[in-house]
Amino acid sequence: MISLVGAGPGDPELLTLKALRRLKEADLVLYDALVPEAILALAPQAHRFFVGKRAGRKSIKQETIHRLMIRAARRGQKVVRLKCGDPVVLGRGGEEALALAEAGIPCELVPGISSAIAAPELAGIPVTHRGMSSGFVVLSGHAEDSFRPILAAIAPHSLTLIVLMGLGQREAVRRALLERGWRPDTPSAVLWAASTPRARQWTGRLDQLANAEGEDESPGTLVIGEVVSLARVEPRREGAVSHGGR
Amino acid sequence: MISLVGAGPGDPELLTLKALRRLKEADLVLYDALVPEAILALAPQAHRFFVGKRAGRKSIKQETIHRLMIRAARRGQKVVRLKCGDPVVLGRGGEEALALAEAGIPCELVPGISSAIAAPELAGIPVTHRGMSSGFVVLSGHAEDSFRPILAAIAPHSLTLIVLMGLGQREAVRRALLERGWRPDTPSAVLWAASTPRARQWTGRLDQLANAEGEDESPGTLVIGEVVSLARVEPRREGAVSHGGR
Repeated sequence: MISLVGAGPGDPELLTLKALRRLKEADLVLYDALVPEAILALAPQAHRFFVGKRAGRKSIKQETIHRLMIRAARRGQKVVRLKCGDPVVLGRGGEEALALAEAGIPCELVPGISSAIAAPELAGIPVTHRGMSSGFVVLSGHAEDSFRPILAAIAPHSLTLIVLMGLGQREAVRRALLERGWRPDTPSAVLWAASTPRARQWTGRLDQLANAEGEDESPGTLVIGEVVSLARVEPRREGAVSHGGR
Repeated sequence: MISLVGAGPGDPELLTLKALRRLKEADLVLYDALVPEAILALAPQAHRFFVGKRAGRKSIKQETIHRLMIRAARRGQKVVRLKCGDPVVLGRGGEEALALAEAGIPCELVPGISSAIAAPELAGIPVTHRGMSSGFVVLSGHAEDSFRPILAAIAPHSLTLIVLMGLGQREAVRRALLERGWRPDTPSAVLWAASTPRARQWTGRLDQLANAEGEDESPGTLVIGEVVSLARVEPRREGAVSHGGR
């Protein structure tokens, strides 16, 4: 049995009870980049193997991950495939589940807290808010050719936009939204390392998104829409949150 | 201190560690409809008070909920405001956080697993999937005047659509999407009571959405888009999942 487990946004307290149970029982944990050490430490008996992508290093192929999982499962090992956030939110969990199904390996999905919702929430930004936004869109900022058609498909100001891993492409996102007719002063935020002691936020206007500068390896979550005006300005945890913008 | 806590989709194992801790310490739990008894039982010491909406009964006003929270907090009680799923996903968590901030009461948000993502995930439907969908939209099916503009704002087949509490309005959703140009054969699902022993699913074509019939008080999650074609046909838990449509 293989469990595809969501590790949540980073704070070990935001793991689910089920995820914790699976980690404790695991023989093998295959984990992605950005899964914190404090979460891996919850699987003390397991062999832990990094299968993530890291800047500047050759990354492991998706097929290799499938092969590792299948081999371990056939040996009778309890395998946890540990992913940041939720396994099916831009995490290739669906692909891994299909590969396992094709190999005849039973697999379960254990949902995790996605930073798509939790990162804004912990910064005081509700992704929906009565009278402001009755819905939200989540997309990946990883590749421009995948997010441009999505941004083009959505009428301006109709929903809250959440762009995961969006920091590197914030300039392209800004340009695409302004071209699409979003107001330059649309409240916008960039959130880093949500739920962790390194959590940091920038808030400002859409047309100033380029001013948001990252400091660490956190890929950054962009949030664009009226609800960003509700963001808490005051830091919750001392030194953990900063406020930039205009 | 007041905690606005997400109870997740229903399975107590999908609570976060933090939510469990807050429940165990609580003096007062104010809970919504559909929070299962098994989760309330995790706060054995607390006074538990139902503040949800129920069909056929006069429901408590939002202002009354605010007043109850503020009064209890001023008495020094540890208050948990327990909401289905995640507090800010169509759950008025933002409004409650603002009301508390205005009253000068410290408040924290504890994210929960949203059935927007978890309900499809547990049915084998990844909300995003490489080559099929690079993003998803979440909206409420509660009121037609709020979901119609959102459905109109999105180009057909550009994203996975997830309509929470959508069962009652499935006919209006179907009509709006077909008028907007979605293909009649777009794979569609209705998911009830995800993650619980009463979990049930219907899958079929968009134009047959009216065939999906609910049996219990679960408000139903609609999922529309190519990714629904990946849904597991086989039940995971015996008797828990059925398959309709074609």
